[in-house]
Amino acid sequence: MTEIVTAAMIVIGDEILSGRTKDRNIGHLADIMTAIGIDLKEVRVVPDEEDEIVAAINALRSRYTYVFTTGGIGPTHDDITADSVAKAFNVPCEYDPQALDMMRASYAARGLEFTEARMRMARMPRGSDHIANPVSLAPGFRIGNVHVMAGVPSIFQAMLDNVVPTLKTGAKLLSVTVHCPFGEGTIGGPLGEIQKRHPDTIIGSYPQYRDGTFSTELVVRSRSVAALEAARSDVETMVAGFVKVS
Amino acid sequence: MTEIVTAAMIVIGDEILSGRTKDRNIGHLADIMTAIGIDLKEVRVVPDEEDEIVAAINALRSRYTYVFTTGGIGPTHDDITADSVAKAFNVPCEYDPQALDMMRASYAARGLEFTEARMRMARMPRGSDHIANPVSLAPGFRIGNVHVMAGVPSIFQAMLDNVVPTLKTGAKLLSVTVHCPFGEGTIGGPLGEIQKRHPDTIIGSYPQYRDGTFSTELVVRSRSVAALEAARSDVETMVAGFVKVS
Repeated sequence: MTEIVTAAMIVIGDEILSGRTKDRNIGHLADIMTAIGIDLKEVRVVPDEEDEIVAAINALRSRYTYVFTTGGIGPTHDDITADSVAKAFNVPCEYDPQALDMMRASYAARGLEFTEARMRMARMPRGSDHIANPVSLAPGFRIGNVHVMAGVPSIFQAMLDNVVPTLKTGAKLLSVTVHCPFGEGTIGGPLGEIQKRHPDTIIGSYPQYRDGTFSTELVVRSRSVAALEAARSDVETMVAGFVKVS
Repeated sequence: MTEIVTAAMIVIGDEILSGRTKDRNIGHLADIMTAIGIDLKEVRVVPDEEDEIVAAINALRSRYTYVFTTGGIGPTHDDITADSVAKAFNVPCEYDPQALDMMRASYAARGLEFTEARMRMARMPRGSDHIANPVSLAPGFRIGNVHVMAGVPSIFQAMLDNVVPTLKTGAKLLSVTVHCPFGEGTIGGPLGEIQKRHPDTIIGSYPQYRDGTFSTELVVRSRSVAALEAARSDVETMVAGFVKVS
């Protein structure tokens, strides 16, 4: 039987909690994890406060196969993710010589000063591996099962593309959606019965409300094709029955 | 001195963690909290699993002034928020007579059957107050400092509009944004110095990356107008100095 691989995400940044920036990374990570067969089990959004970041990292890294963080790895004083991750792992946060060399050469080639602020982006917990950043060079890093990436969506996505091939993936949770032109109040009872008859599936019901009318997307998920198809068939039969009745 | 009022949010639903539904409620709650002077300090996204929901509610309700939840209060078997909240508060989850009467009358008036599934939406933890739902009737509820609302954005927003007047609000965190045409690597050092000189402010730096160039939004926040204006002036002077230099 294939192993189940789990993940959690930590979104770091006051700007998300204040509403100033609307997060776009949760949905992207969720899509990618689902596509490669890793179960994203929890997301936390925490402020730019060391104690909060440390607590979230330590709570989640011991519980899930992988942890992914976004945000707080830039060059300014409010970028405290590297220090916080180092503290969570109880190792020093220090300048990485390879990152320094790479960044120094790049800034020199562009005629830009390698400021102390820019040097901050070469700091990472001792023992980290780089996560390459093809967009703006300054790398993310991985230590243990924690992957630390940028908050700017285009950079986060590029970094994640580099992380995905390094991850072990699990049995993929397959899914099929059955559209239902009725609200949950109509189909809720029989749907619950179908769920009971198909314990190897997870049947979700997602209401949509438009122009004063509810409809429902019924999503059957399973790691087994046979279980998925059996439950799907029952759901479709149920929906068809309601269509004929009404 | 005005009290600081804090909040946390719990987004409940497998569909957010699978990527199937992209959350739109976090940003909305964040905007509203900021507008009324409540500090949103943490958000958790958890699956449709009772233990996870109970753990999140109990972790957050003891820590923050208010907790707001979205999702899982519909009529189907996967809607387990009411039961989970009751368990967290160690009270029974039971049919609320007032909600039952109101819903029975409404369905009767519309010629719809008051199915067992629909009746599920009248269940709430003993001792709860209703949160009115002007969109689709079935109420949310408040117990203690926990406000339980729908996941469908239009219904969540309407319920939250009814909750806001009941909340105590704190000293509003004022904010002003200074646009900076340079990346964080350029201004990071001096900006950190400005933060040190203005300890009663929180200065955030939010990079934007477009067409191969970084720019930065510098956001100064404070509960004091005087502190805000003093820091804003220093930030503007700093940005202007770089403009003249380059």
